[in-house]
Parts: sequence; structure tokens; C-alpha cells
Amino acid sequence: MSSLADILEGYKQSRISLEEACEALTRAHTAHLGHTTVDLHRQRRVGAAEVIYAPGKTPQQLAEIFVAMAGKQQNVLATRADAAGFAAVQCELPQAAFNQTARTIVHVSRPVPLAASRIAVVSAGTSDQLVAEEATVTAEFYGNSVTRISDVGVAGLHRLLTRIGEIETARVVIVVAGMEGALPSVIAGLIRAPVIAVPTSVGYGASFGGITALLGMMNSCASAVSVVNIDNGFGAGYIASLINRTDMPQSGGL
Amino acid sequence: MSSLADILEGYKQSRISLEEACEALTRAHTAHLGHTTVDLHRQRRVGAAEVIYAPGKTPQQLAEIFVAMAGKQQNVLATRADAAGFAAVQCELPQAAFNQTARTIVHVSRPVPLAASRIAVVSAGTSDQLVAEEATVTAEFYGNSVTRISDVGVAGLHRLLTRIGEIETARVVIVVAGMEGALPSVIAGLIRAPVIAVPTSVGYGASFGGITALLGMMNSCASAVSVVNIDNGFGAGYIASLINRTDMPQSGGL
Amino acid sequence: MSSLADILEGYKQSRISLEEACEALTRAHTAHLGHTTVDLHRQRRVGAAEVIYAPGKTPQQLAEIFVAMAGKQQNVLATRADAAGFAAVQCELPQAAFNQTARTIVHVSRPVPLAASRIAVVSAGTSDQLVAEEATVTAEFYGNSVTRISDVGVAGLHRLLTRIGEIETARVVIVVAGMEGALPSVIAGLIRAPVIAVPTSVGYGASFGGITALLGMMNSCASAVSVVNIDNGFGAGYIASLINRTDMPQSGGL
Amino acid sequence: MSSLADILEGYKQSRISLEEACEALTRAHTAHLGHTTVDLHRQRRVGAAEVIYAPGKTPQQLAEIFVAMAGKQQNVLATRADAAGFAAVQCELPQAAFNQTARTIVHVSRPVPLAASRIAVVSAGTSDQLVAEEATVTAEFYGNSVTRISDVGVAGLHRLLTRIGEIETARVVIVVAGMEGALPSVIAGLIRAPVIAVPTSVGYGASFGGITALLGMMNSCASAVSVVNIDNGFGAGYIASLINRTDMPQSGGL
Amino acid sequence: MSSLADILEGYKQSRISLEEACEALTRAHTAHLGHTTVDLHRQRRVGAAEVIYAPGKTPQQLAEIFVAMAGKQQNVLATRADAAGFAAVQCELPQAAFNQTARTIVHVSRPVPLAASRIAVVSAGTSDQLVAEEATVTAEFYGNSVTRISDVGVAGLHRLLTRIGEIETARVVIVVAGMEGALPSVIAGLIRAPVIAVPTSVGYGASFGGITALLGMMNSCASAVSVVNIDNGFGAGYIASLINRTDMPQSGGL
Amino acid sequence: MSSLADILEGYKQSRISLEEACEALTRAHTAHLGHTTVDLHRQRRVGAAEVIYAPGKTPQQLAEIFVAMAGKQQNVLATRADAAGFAAVQCELPQAAFNQTARTIVHVSRPVPLAASRIAVVSAGTSDQLVAEEATVTAEFYGNSVTRISDVGVAGLHRLLTRIGEIETARVVIVVAGMEGALPSVIAGLIRAPVIAVPTSVGYGASFGGITALLGMMNSCASAVSVVNIDNGFGAGYIASLINRTDMPQSGGL
Amino acid sequence: MSSLADILEGYKQSRISLEEACEALTRAHTAHLGHTTVDLHRQRRVGAAEVIYAPGKTPQQLAEIFVAMAGKQQNVLATRADAAGFAAVQCELPQAAFNQTARTIVHVSRPVPLAASRIAVVSAGTSDQLVAEEATVTAEFYGNSVTRISDVGVAGLHRLLTRIGEIETARVVIVVAGMEGALPSVIAGLIRAPVIAVPTSVGYGASFGGITALLGMMNSCASAVSVVNIDNGFGAGYIASLINRTDMPQSGGL
Amino acid sequence: MSSLADILEGYKQSRISLEEACEALTRAHTAHLGHTTVDLHRQRRVGAAEVIYAPGKTPQQLAEIFVAMAGKQQNVLATRADAAGFAAVQCELPQAAFNQTARTIVHVSRPVPLAASRIAVVSAGTSDQLVAEEATVTAEFYGNSVTRISDVGVAGLHRLLTRIGEIETARVVIVVAGMEGALPSVIAGLIRAPVIAVPTSVGYGASFGGITALLGMMNSCASAVSVVNIDNGFGAGYIASLINRTDMPQSGGL
Repeated sequence: MSSLADILEGYKQSRISLEEACEALTRAHTAHLGHTTVDLHRQRRVGAAEVIYAPGKTPQQLAEIFVAMAGKQQNVLATRADAAGFAAVQCELPQAAFNQTARTIVHVSRPVPLAASRIAVVSAGTSDQLVAEEATVTAEFYGNSVTRISDVGVAGLHRLLTRIGEIETARVVIVVAGMEGALPSVIAGLIRAPVIAVPTSVGYGASFGGITALLGMMNSCASAVSVVNIDNGFGAGYIASLINRTDMPQSGGL
Repeated sequence: MSSLADILEGYKQSRISLEEACEALTRAHTAHLGHTTVDLHRQRRVGAAEVIYAPGKTPQQLAEIFVAMAGKQQNVLATRADAAGFAAVQCELPQAAFNQTARTIVHVSRPVPLAASRIAVVSAGTSDQLVAEEATVTAEFYGNSVTRISDVGVAGLHRLLTRIGEIETARVVIVVAGMEGALPSVIAGLIRAPVIAVPTSVGYGASFGGITALLGMMNSCASAVSVVNIDNGFGAGYIASLINRTDMPQSGGL
Repeated sequence: MSSLADILEGYKQSRISLEEACEALTRAHTAHLGHTTVDLHRQRRVGAAEVIYAPGKTPQQLAEIFVAMAGKQQNVLATRADAAGFAAVQCELPQAAFNQTARTIVHVSRPVPLAASRIAVVSAGTSDQLVAEEATVTAEFYGNSVTRISDVGVAGLHRLLTRIGEIETARVVIVVAGMEGALPSVIAGLIRAPVIAVPTSVGYGASFGGITALLGMMNSCASAVSVVNIDNGFGAGYIASLINRTDMPQSGGL
Repeated sequence: MSSLADILEGYKQSRISLEEACEALTRAHTAHLGHTTVDLHRQRRVGAAEVIYAPGKTPQQLAEIFVAMAGKQQNVLATRADAAGFAAVQCELPQAAFNQTARTIVHVSRPVPLAASRIAVVSAGTSDQLVAEEATVTAEFYGNSVTRISDVGVAGLHRLLTRIGEIETARVVIVVAGMEGALPSVIAGLIRAPVIAVPTSVGYGASFGGITALLGMMNSCASAVSVVNIDNGFGAGYIASLINRTDMPQSGGL
Repeated sequence: MSSLADILEGYKQSRISLEEACEALTRAHTAHLGHTTVDLHRQRRVGAAEVIYAPGKTPQQLAEIFVAMAGKQQNVLATRADAAGFAAVQCELPQAAFNQTARTIVHVSRPVPLAASRIAVVSAGTSDQLVAEEATVTAEFYGNSVTRISDVGVAGLHRLLTRIGEIETARVVIVVAGMEGALPSVIAGLIRAPVIAVPTSVGYGASFGGITALLGMMNSCASAVSVVNIDNGFGAGYIASLINRTDMPQSGGL
Repeated sequence: MSSLADILEGYKQSRISLEEACEALTRAHTAHLGHTTVDLHRQRRVGAAEVIYAPGKTPQQLAEIFVAMAGKQQNVLATRADAAGFAAVQCELPQAAFNQTARTIVHVSRPVPLAASRIAVVSAGTSDQLVAEEATVTAEFYGNSVTRISDVGVAGLHRLLTRIGEIETARVVIVVAGMEGALPSVIAGLIRAPVIAVPTSVGYGASFGGITALLGMMNSCASAVSVVNIDNGFGAGYIASLINRTDMPQSGGL
Repeated sequence: MSSLADILEGYKQSRISLEEACEALTRAHTAHLGHTTVDLHRQRRVGAAEVIYAPGKTPQQLAEIFVAMAGKQQNVLATRADAAGFAAVQCELPQAAFNQTARTIVHVSRPVPLAASRIAVVSAGTSDQLVAEEATVTAEFYGNSVTRISDVGVAGLHRLLTRIGEIETARVVIVVAGMEGALPSVIAGLIRAPVIAVPTSVGYGASFGGITALLGMMNSCASAVSVVNIDNGFGAGYIASLINRTDMPQSGGL
Repeated sequence: MSSLADILEGYKQSRISLEEACEALTRAHTAHLGHTTVDLHRQRRVGAAEVIYAPGKTPQQLAEIFVAMAGKQQNVLATRADAAGFAAVQCELPQAAFNQTARTIVHVSRPVPLAASRIAVVSAGTSDQLVAEEATVTAEFYGNSVTRISDVGVAGLHRLLTRIGEIETARVVIVVAGMEGALPSVIAGLIRAPVIAVPTSVGYGASFGGITALLGMMNSCASAVSVVNIDNGFGAGYIASLINRTDMPQSGGL
């Protein structure tokens, strides 16, 4: 509230005119109103932790964004990126890392301190791993330790049961599955953490590019399941981080 | 082929005219062509084992059909019947039995010998039991022993695992589930018998009256699952009987 | 792992026979395997904190369940209950409380200590309040403080902005909206907490009983939004509690 | 009505025979009946202001249409055009202008006087700008001043609020958005002008190529919103012009 | 901007403390920020022209709202109202008027001056007239002259053509149609005014409660058509008024 | 063309003024333009053969329409009528006939001469007969001989094959079926007449109130099948009559 | 019935053995039973008038089929063919004709006598003409005179009205339209012939590849409209021929 | 239960330490719990009869899997494989067989003894044969004799009827059909064996890539039909084998 007080004092002491005070207050209110937004936004997109959706950007554009952000000591994550995009970024920033499965490029200027609790990312089939890896990289980018558990689909329950110990100690669990999307229900019935379900477009015929999995997860008979969009690994990783950390970490010394 | 020969002989020996022979052959061909159909049909609907879909029939009509069939020593099953229909049937046939959960009326004239192997009927939630019971009564009507296992939804896997021994010894398993319809996948991954999945209209919101469960079952990651229509307990019981018995039993002395 | 060791020791020291040891191990393994499930289950459904889905149960049945649970000093919550059900419960347990808007009955045997952080439940229109109230009662039942904020739909942004301060201090925010379901996106863009979106069946025409709202929330341009089923206030309240508390509270002295 | 009078006079004064008069009247009646259509049509498509849907036409065909129209001093707009089409047009008409984002070619023979009031075209995300630009070029083609406001999605409300002053002074506002399509509701709640909402095919998964945005806009809780087809920037620009001008301008000296 | 100045002056002259000034400015900024919203809102809902969605309100509640608004000299419109609601309103406000077809109650305290141009409301079939009448009453409530043209469906083109003269002179045309929803396309091809299409739930089978009409209108081959939700007569009337009048009228001397 | 000549002559001979001539020509052109429409319309709806859709009309209104039409010696058909409506009609017109299955009321003033060729109406199941009967009554109303063939669903092919002789001699065949809607394909493969397929809303679960049958018929592997709306027996009967007769009969003194 | 008699006689006179007679009767019955099918089939596919669906066949295979059929003096029509397929056919049969718009290849061995009445094929937009041309070629192949009327969409009613005279004299009218699919309703309201509506996949956004047009046609407010599958020009042409000719013509001297 | 006893004895006799015993019991319990799963799994995927879904695997990876399995004397089946994959496998295992239609690679180390009863695989159209062949190869791989019957669509019933004798002697029948998917209903009405229906993506327009066929089969009026996913030939073959054999054969020396 100090900025309002500043303007008021400035006006009372006649350092600024009435007109100037009105204008400053209008500007201030704008900043005031949106301060959460602005800060959050700066933190999340323009600032410390920038996330870039790569499709539609040229390798050159991608590289320029990375360089600009890195210049401000901000960590940068690009999703849905390809090798060409990475090559351009790497020319400028040799420490940038490409995860081919997750299709992500990450460049860290100031390492984020790790949260105390962990996130588990569980995936059903081999083909679901792309989405699971995007969730994993995202969660790690925001400073979370992630346990990866893959190929534990419901049709081979045995494999899942031998891994349940690793899953149940996580603060929050991301479950990635295509086809009938039943894995989140099964896992949510075995543990006490909240489950974020990610339907994938894996399947054929009546899987409708992920709609069947999405609907199945939506109708989970387990109460702890909430759902994000098809193939939205980034969203799941981001939400899991919001749950796992009291405050989303601010990378660097900000 | 003997009937053709009979007509031919009758004509050769002039017991029947050319005109009569042609007409008889036309009739015979009709019978011949369709004989499987006719027999099956007579067996299944008009004959030994009659099944009646009760909705749209008055209690009086229902009672008349039961009486007519019972008079021919045929077993009769009515599905989707209510108490009023049963009252009318019971007045005429005191031994008729009503299953309120399954909404079935059964009258047995000649008991069907039981098949050696068994059918298991597994249901996920309490509300799925209506459909499960319709499947059970149907399977029993055709001379099958049925093991009922209920309330073993995927969100409480523990209960399912303690019953898996009973399930895995069945020749064929009917799995009834609403909401996300994940139970057939889980069971099919644990046993070696074929699984007939029955989606139910249990659920709300994005369950779409059973469509979500149907789609989930259709996209099962377990190979042994085939699916029937929403709430179609009768169909599941009938198919399970076709699988469990080499020949669908012919009730009575046929 | 001590229970296994106990059995082993008991057997080694011949306190139990080989047969007894095998049986105990089988039982133990069952418990071991499913211990999270079993415990969780007991806690959640059979034990301390029982939740009952009222539809399909008679007032008498409902009352019996409440009495049985209360006799074990367990807290009980019934959802989608009506006045008749409450009357029957109240005869036996005068302290039971009915929330007509939320359609819930709650009976608390041992008060749950409140979590330090809060949950906000935000709803768009007047008609969305039924679902919002179910979420609120559920969250409170599990020991969470809830801030209710209603009638702040996106078409009257002003009302929302004046309440944003209350929303942004919550650990997790439930947003309930029908029609186009845009409110979660707007709120998630203004705050840093995870948002659980609940589509409601409020609307007409092309709202398809909540499908449009569900799809809109699924496609939120804000990353922090995950979604539960249409009108699923209970699920949202339950998940919010899982996020707000490190461990779901165990009511009573357990 | 003068043409009917002309024929009547011509006949009365015997300049034309009865047969000629009947035929002329039949022809005239055709013109009369449809005169709005014909005129409008000639104005809009064949005449002064011709609009061409480019897909399915060769560059050569496109160029020929432009030349023919320009020869009649008519303004021409081609939508969904590509660079090859433009190259062919430009060879013949060097003043023709290509808008790569909007994918439009415009050739103006007689400048249209500008309407007094303005149209605002607001778009949510970067990818929505193609459609927004098509709407903008269309509106400008018909003689409207357009204010472009882009990248003001609902998840970053702050950016929108700082631009609301520019939006609220427009006579009619076109709002272009993909994903959940919430922007029209938010804007319509802040201003008093009619809002034409254009869903775009931007999004993935459950966005269904724009269906989710379309449904969301259709169910807007703000009353001032009407909707056109997915990606239909042209239609929105055309309707906005019909609203902004009392009469759609007739380009050239007509 | 004067209110800001007032606070500033009050503070400068020490009539209010710094704390009071900060709080007043925060409040003022809120009002300032949202002034369009607030004013619009007050005008539209709380103020001069109040619109009430009747379903879910008791007759008594409805009557109380009418009385409160009328006491402030504001005009009130209730939509989807029934005879019982009207009876309660009429007891208190004898001049209130009920339109049984439109299901509207209107009470006018200060007559709104009529706009110079007119709105046409065209409907296809007899059953579409309910929705058309809601649009008509709404448009009239906001001070527009309305021409009603009904029963001019596309399968009887002749009837439409004889009325086209009345339609083409309107500033904006609302077209209401169910079934295949083709009427807006036909009309928009004959006139030059913008067309607001209202799909209705009239039809059966594959009309899907209005979805087919909505989709048909959405895909109109005529460019001048925008669409509102199924049966949304109110929305169409409101938008048409926004188009027909430069400013939505402010009833009374406010 | 004579009316035009009349007006021209009237004007030339100054029996009418220029103004009168223009107005008369405008009127004449209207009549001229639409004469097919008008005539057809009068014949089909207002005139000789009136069809009334009963729902939404009171018994009294229904009776009045019948009396008015009968007074003009026109035949009248009401569809979707009930017993109450018939009672009212019968009071006034004792010869009116009610078909309870088809839900039709027919009153014939002048019998229509029968067409030489016949129409066959084939239905699959018992429940499809309501729609089949509506088609039958409609076809008979327009003067066609109809062969009814019912209960010949594809699952009992034998019954169908024994009736194929009756079907293949019809000029056009209406096939009515619900559930999977396969009957039209089977019949169209056995005969040479055009087949009009009518999906019915008979079925449950994934039959979606007739959508599955409609889609099945739409995708018939037999080329001779065209489809009308779900349960649209009237439409099928009307189209079959258009095909069976060179000209739709004009009941009355033609 | 003579063939049966022949066999009987042959057997009676001992020209054939009992075994031979049984076998012959079995064969004969097969032929008898299916004689309509067989004949029709031979006529339609294997015989006089062969129709080939080209996709999935190599140019060489296509040419071989044409040669084989032409060798039997049968007329052949291939649909959905391309230039490569035609080139191969033309090498062998220089008189074969390719219609690039309709994508058809036709080779006529024996010209079919023309039916007395005509078929009209009406299409809405330029892009609908491919489908219209397939319908036209098909109808002509079966010996019908066809009137082509194109580019008469409902948004330019004037053009349609000037052609209505040509349309109303046809025995049956095929109407081809995409987008909202309104043209069949409008035409069916102006004429007395049956209308076969063909939805096309022309459109974008919410046209769903023709579904919107299909649904619109299905819900036509005009009674004379029946519908075939999307883009099914062949089916429409075939059905129109079945209606236009009492018997489908048998090409050649059969 | 012996393994538990073994561990207990080993521990009692101090052959293993307490720690070793606990670990062994944990392992054993895991094996015990899941033993069906494990065995089944080993048999089906890792062991004797391995099935590989080829898409997403490089030819080299495919070859490696085949070699590894063949080295363990296990039979291997790859589905959805292409020629390149086969080439790589064949280099290593010259006896491997490629079925180009079925897109399968099979390598048999130990021939599976054939079941006594047979499976019939029936397909409707030419294009359905790919899926039918996948079902056939799968069934044969598991040791079943298969009768192939193709091109017997419902529109040519005659061809089907002449083959019904071959179909009705099978223990289970797979029916493969696209478009309207009516064939399973017709066949199930003619025979007594269970029918597994496989919808295919064959068709266009409103066939929706197989959805229409799937829905049609789901709503079959014949009781014996259950359904698998679109184009899922493998699943159908696998389920048919489960039905045809009492135990799924264990290839190799078991």
C-alpha cells in the first residue's frame, strides 16, 4: 500500500500537482490491481522462469528468446521443441539441454533449490512416455524431485503393485495413460496423495485421439483424481509443482 | 437331405402330382434353407427356452405367454419385468420365480442339466448389481453355475485381489461396471478366461448414461475383452452360456 | 516389515506351527500388499471418516449407517441427501446437521483439528451455489477452513476483482461454474495457487448439461487448472483437502 | 418502380409490341423481385465490392478475376489467398496489396469513404492473429477504421484491462479466441457495444479444432455476444461493417 | 476523475487521515477501474433497466424484486416467467404486463423513447413463435419498434417473398428457426441488414434439441449471419437493440 | 401470361392509371412467380389434401380444422393425434377414422382413385410398427395400395425370406427399423425397387434414440437406400407416394 | 417353377439318379431362392451394367475388369477413378470416356434406351459440382436424361427462382449441397417431385466434413426429402434412376 | 503354498538369515499374489507366445526381439508390421513368415498342437479383409484351425447363404464388417455359436472411421454378438482362441 501513500505524500507536500497525482494514482491503481498478475506473469513468463511453446517459432526466434532470458539470469523452458530448434539454441547457449522424448529445451541460469517432498510421474504404456517425460521435465524445471515409473498399465497389475511403495510416498502423483485411461482410478485407490490424470492420444479406433481416456478419468470412481487436457504433460507438471511446493520457486536470487 | 428324397420318391411313385411336388419342394427348400434358423429360433424363442422382453406387454399378455409355453413343457424367462407382471404370471403358474433385483421372471418345466464349468459375474459398484443379476439369472436359466462377485471396483483393488481366485477358475467371466468402466481391463490382466464387459448407465455428468464406460471397455488395453451394449445383462449372460457350454442346453427331453 | 519378522520369529521359536505360519504370512501379505488401501479405506469409508452417497438408500438405511458409524466415534458425511433422510438421521442423532443447499448431512463425533492454510470456493452464478456448497461442506468435514465467494461470474469482472485478495491467500482454490465455464481461467491468471475447476450442469441449449463448461475448463489457457466431473462438488472438496493438508486428517484420537 | 413504368409507357406509346412488353415485364419482374438480391449481389460479388474465396482457383484464374473487376472500377478482396496467387495478381495490377498474416489480396479502384465510428478487433493469443487479421482486412476493405488489440487472453487479465479504454469506444467489437473461448464473455461484461465472437481452431486435445471455443462462446453468460463459424474472420468483419455503417459502403462513385 | 481529486483534496486539507485516504483511494480505484462495468451493470441489472431470469425464484421473490426496482423508477423485465409469478407481481404492481407466449413480465416506470430505425423478428414455424416473442418483447423493452413476421419457413418460400419488403427495411433482423435452421441463410441472401440467427429446440429425431439448427446457422453460406444459443430469444433481442440504437437507452431521467 | 397482357391492355386503354398498373403488375408477378408454390401449397396443405401435425393443438382446434376442410370437400389427415383429439373430431364428423397404432385421424370427403402399382411397408420389430403404421396410413391417404410386412428383423432372416416375394413386386419399399438399422441393406440387396429407410427410436443404451439406426442406414452397403428422419413415418409415406404415382393425386372433383 | 419341374421329370423318367436329382434340386433351390438377388446381381455388378469402385485397384486391374466386361457386351462404370486409371483403360478400350470432374470412367457396349421422363441434378456451390457430376454421370449411365443446374445456393435465391421451371418438370430431383445444406428444403417447397438430398463435405469449421449438411437435410421442414450419405453422388444417381424408370434399364440386347 | 514353507524351513534351520527370509518372503508374496498374472504374462508376452505391436519399433529393434524370443524357443507374432520390419527379422530368422495382407510376422519355434474345433472368420467387403486376415493369423498363431469366408456382405445375401454351412460348424465366429456393420446380426441369427464382431474403418462420410459400424454391432438385435474395437483383428483372434480352446495353448515343450 506504500505506493499509494507515496503519491499522497508527494501531493500533500506539493512535490506533484493535482493533475500529476491523479495520473499517478490511475497508473498506480493499474499496477496495484494487477500486481499479482504482473508479478506472477513476470516470474512465470517474462522473468525468472520463462516457458515457451515452441511450435510456430523459427529456430532463430527460439534462440533469441533463450538468449534474452538467459541474459536476465532467468531459467527458460521450451516445450514441444524439435532438434532444429535445439541446435539454434545450443549455438548460443552451450549448456542448454535437450530432452528428445519430452521434446523440451531447458536452460538454467540459477539452479532452483529442490522441494523437500517428491512428485511421482506414472505412465501406463510405452507410448505414453512422451507425455510423462514432458510432465517430468516441467516438474524438475520448477525445482521438484521426480520419481519416474513407467509401463505399469492396468492390464499387468503385478508390475504396478511392485512399484506402489515408490508411488505412495510422493506428495502428489501424475498419472499418464491413453486407451481406456483406467490407471488413475487404480492408483488413486491405493494411495492417499492427490492424483493429476493426463489422458494421452495413444490408441486407435474408438479412442478418439484421447477423448475416451479423458472421459474415463473424468468419471473415475476414485475421489482423488482431477484431470488436465489430452497430452498436456506441461500442465500436469506445473500443477503438481504448485501442490508440492508451498510457493512456486523463484529461480535465481530474485 | 432325406426330405428332398422323400418328395422325389413320392412323385416318382405318383403318390403326389407334379404340382404338389413343386409346391412341396418350394416349402421344403424354405425349411431346408433356414433350418438352422428355424430350429434355433424355435428352441430359443418359440420352443424349449423362450425369452420374453416384458416392457410393452400387459401383465395379462405376459401371463398368457408363460401359460402357453409352460403347456409345451418349455422353460420361460422374462426380462425387465415388474411385480405386476409377476403377480399375473404367478396366479397361473405358482412355481414361477421373480428376481426383484434382476427384474426377471423364470418358470422351469424341465430342469436343465448343469454345465461342468462355471461362469463368474463380477460387478464394480452397488448400483451395477441390477445388470449383474440379469446376467446371472440368464446364465443360470441356460444351465450354468454362476459365481457372483460384487462391489470390487478398481478404486478398492484390495477387495478384488482377495476374490481373484474365485474369478480365475471360471470358464468365462462377465464384468459389469459403470462410470469409467475400468474393471474389465484389470480383471482381464489377471486371468486367462475370455471377459465379456457390460457397461452400465451408472454415473452422472460426463458418464453420458454409460457411453464413457462403453468406450473405455472398447479401448481396453487387455486383449481378452469384448463388449455388449449398455445395461445388456441378458446378452452377456447368453453369450457366456454359448461359451461355457459346447451346445446351448436344450431344456426338457428334446 | 516387522510383522513378517514377528511371524518368522514365532515360527522359529515354535510358538506357531508351520501351517499357522503359512496362513499368517498369507494374511499378512494380503494386509501388507494392500495396507495402504486397507488403512486408507478403513479411514475413509468404514472408519473414522465415512462418506455416504445417499441416493438409493432409504431414510431408515441412512439412519442405521449413521448410528453404526457414530457408535464407533467416527465422523460421517452423507452427500446428495434430502430432508426425509435427514429427519430419520436426526431422530437417532440430534446433533446431526443438514445443509439444504449442499444436500449434505454431517455428524461429527470427534472434531477434526483445522489445517493452518485455507481453501477458497468460488462460484460464478447463483445456480452454481449448490455444487459450491457441496464442495465447501466436504472440505470443512475434512478439517479445512473455507472462504466462500459467490456470484462473481466473468461477465461482471468488477465483482471478482474486489474479491481477488481473499482468493489469492488460499492454499488451493475450487472454482465452480456452468455455461461457458470461463471463470477458472480468469482466476488462475490472477493467482498462484492450484485451481480445481468444477463444471456445473447449469445452462441450456448448447451447454449440454455441463459438457461445454467441462470442455472449456479442460482447454483453459491458464496452466494451473485441473478439472473434475460435472457437478462433482464432493470430489473437488476432497482433492482440495488432500492438497491443503499434508495428510488427510484422521478424525478422533486414532 | 420506374423500369415498370418505362415498359408500360413504351407499350402505351406503341414503341414496343404487346409481346415485347410481356417479355420485358417478365424479365423486369425477375429483376424487380430480386432487386435487393441482384443489386446487393452485384455490389458485393460481381460489382463494386467483389469478394473472392481463393482456394480452388489457380493463380491465373485469380488474376483474371481481379483484372476483370478492376476494369469495372470495382474494389476486389480475395480471402485465403497465398503468395503464388498474389504474384499472379500483382503482375497485372501492381497496386494490389497482399497481407501475409490475413492471407488476403486487396485491390482498390475507388477508395471507400471511412465510417465515422470504429470497429475493434481483439484477439486472445498469438495464433489467433491470423483470423483476427482476416477480420481486420475485411472491415477495412468495406471502409471501416479498425483498432487492433492482440495478445490479451483471459489468463493475463491485466493486459486486457489496460486496453479496455480502446475497446469500449468502438461501435462494435470482434473478439477472436481459441482454446476455451472465454474472452468474448469477459469483454462483453466490460463494455456496451455488441460483440461478434469468432472461435478459432487454435488448441489441441479436447479443443476439437475449435468446437470447444464455439460452444463456450455460444453459452456466454454475457448477453451481448453472437457467434460466427470457426476461423470465420471474413464473416465477422463483414457483419461488423454492416453494424458500424448504416449502409454498407458502395466503393467508387456509385 | 473528480472523486480522486476529492480524496486528494480531503487529505491535503487533513480532513481525512492517510489511512482513510489510502482506503478511500482503494475503494475509489475499484469504482474507477470498473466504472464501465459498474455503470453498465447498474443500468442493465440493478438500475434503470433490470432483467430477471425467473426460473428458480418464487412468485414472492419475483414480486419483491419488481417492487424494489419499481420503487427506484426503474423498468423491469422478467424472462421465462409463468402465470403464478405474474399473479404475485400484479398484486403489487397492477400495471405490470404479462406476455403468455413470450413468458415475460414487464413493468415500465419511465417509458423509453423509441429508436428511429426498426428491428424485424422473423420466425419459421408456429412453434418457433415462443422464442420469437421473447426476442420481440426484449427489443421493445429496450425502446425499439419491432415488426413481427411469422410462419414464413423455407419450405413455403412464397409466403416469405411477399413479406420481404417489410424485412428489408429493418436496421437489423432476428431470424428464429428450428429443424434445419435454413431461414437465416435465405433471408440474409435477400437483404442488406445484419441477421441474428436464433436456433430453436423445435424438431424431433436428428434435430437434437436444436443442435442441427445451430450448426446449420453456424455454416450459413450467407455472410451476414451471426448466431446465439438455442432458444435464446432474450439474447437476440438484446443484441439487436445494441445494433439498432447507438446507445442502449437509459430509461427514465437517469 | 395472359394476366400480364390484361393489365397492359387495361393500361393502354386507360382503364387503369399508371400507378394502378404498376401495383397490379407487382401483385401479378408475385402470383406468377410463386404459382407453382401457391398451387402446390393449396393442394397439399390448405386444399384438397390437408395434413395436420396434431401436437400442440387442442381437441377443439383439431375438430375445427377438420370441419373447415371437410366443408371444402377436402380430405384431411392428422398425425401424432390421440384419442381425445379423435373424440372431438368424431363428434363433428362421424365418418372420421382413428388408427390407434399410427396415431392418425383421417377424414375422406372424396375417395382418391388408387394407383396401379403398390407400396410395401416392412418393419423389423414389434416396436417399430407404430412408425410403420404411420407410413402406411399416409401412403393410403394419398391413394396407394400398401402391403404391410412386419416382424421380419435381420436376426430371423428366415421370416424375411419367406415374404420377399411380396416385397419385390412393390414399386417402392419403405423399411422401418430401430437398433442397428440393418434391415434396409438386406432388403435392398434382394430387390430392385428404391428403398426408403426410416430409423426408429426403438432401442436402448448406445442406440441413442435412433441415431445408430440412422447412421447405419446412411452407410448402407446397398445403393438403393435413402433415409428420412428418425420416426418420420409420415415423410416416408409421402415420398413413397410421390414415387409410386406419377402425380400426387388430387382428391376431390379433379 | 419350370426348372423344378424339369428336374422332377428327369428323375421320374430316370434320366437322372436320385443323388443327381437331390443335388440338382439343392442347386436349383439356391438359384430359386435367390433368383432376384442372383439376377439383379448379375445385371448390376457382374453383367450388363457393371459398377466399379476404383480406389484400391491398380490401373492394370481396372483395365482388366473393363476389358472382361466389355467382352461380354456389358456397359461399365467406374467411380472415384483418376487419370492414371483412365489411361490404362483407354489403351485397351479407346472409346472409354473419362469425366474429370465426376472422376468416372464409362464404357458403353450397347447404348441404353433413354427413359421418357427426366432427372434434374441441382447443386448449391461451385465445390459441390464434383458430387453433382458423379450423380449425373451415374444417372446417364443407366439411361436417364439429366438437366444440370448449378450454383443456385440459397443465399442467392434469385438465381434459383429463374431456374425453377427447369427443375419442376423433372420426375425426380437430386439436390447436392454442403455447408448448412438448406437447398433441398427450399427446392422441395417449390416443386412436387421427390427430392434426393446429397450432403457434401464442402465447408469448414463446424461443418464437420458434411455432418451439418446431412443433419440439416435429415431435418428438412419439407416432406419430400430423403437423404443419402455424404458425397454419395453415385447412390443418388442410382436411386433417381430407380425412381425415374419403371425398371432399371438393361443395357444391351437383354 | 510350498514356496512359503520352503522359506520358513530355510529360516528355521538357519540356512538363511532373518533379513534374507524377509526379503525372500516379500519376493515370494509378490510372485504368489500375482502368480496368475506373472505366468500368464510370461506365457503371453515374455515367454512362449510373445505378441509384439510393431508400430514405433525400428526394423532393428523388431529383429532383436524376435531373435531373443526365438532363442528361448518361444513363438513370436508381430502385428501391424511392414516389409522393412520383416526384412530385418528374416535376415536373422529365415523361417519367419510375413503376411502382407494381415501385416503380421510370425516365427514358430515349437508348433502348437491344433485345437479340435474350428474358428470361422467372415468378412463383408474386400476392404475388410486386412482386418479379417489379422484375426485369422492371430487365431492360427494360437493353434486354431480357421475357415476364411470373405466378400459375403448383407447386400448380397445369396453369397452368404451358400456359405452358411461352413460358418455354422465353427465353435466361434469372428465377423468383420465396415460401413453399417450389419453382418454380425445377420450371421448371429442363422447360427448357434458366439459371434465376435469387429467393426472396421472402411467407409466414408457418416461412417466416421468405423464408429457407425461399432454402434450398429453394439445394438445388434441378435443376442450372441459381442464387440471389440475398430480394426482390432488381433483382439478378435485372441478372444476367439480363448473360447475355442479350453486353455490357451502353451507353445514349446510344456
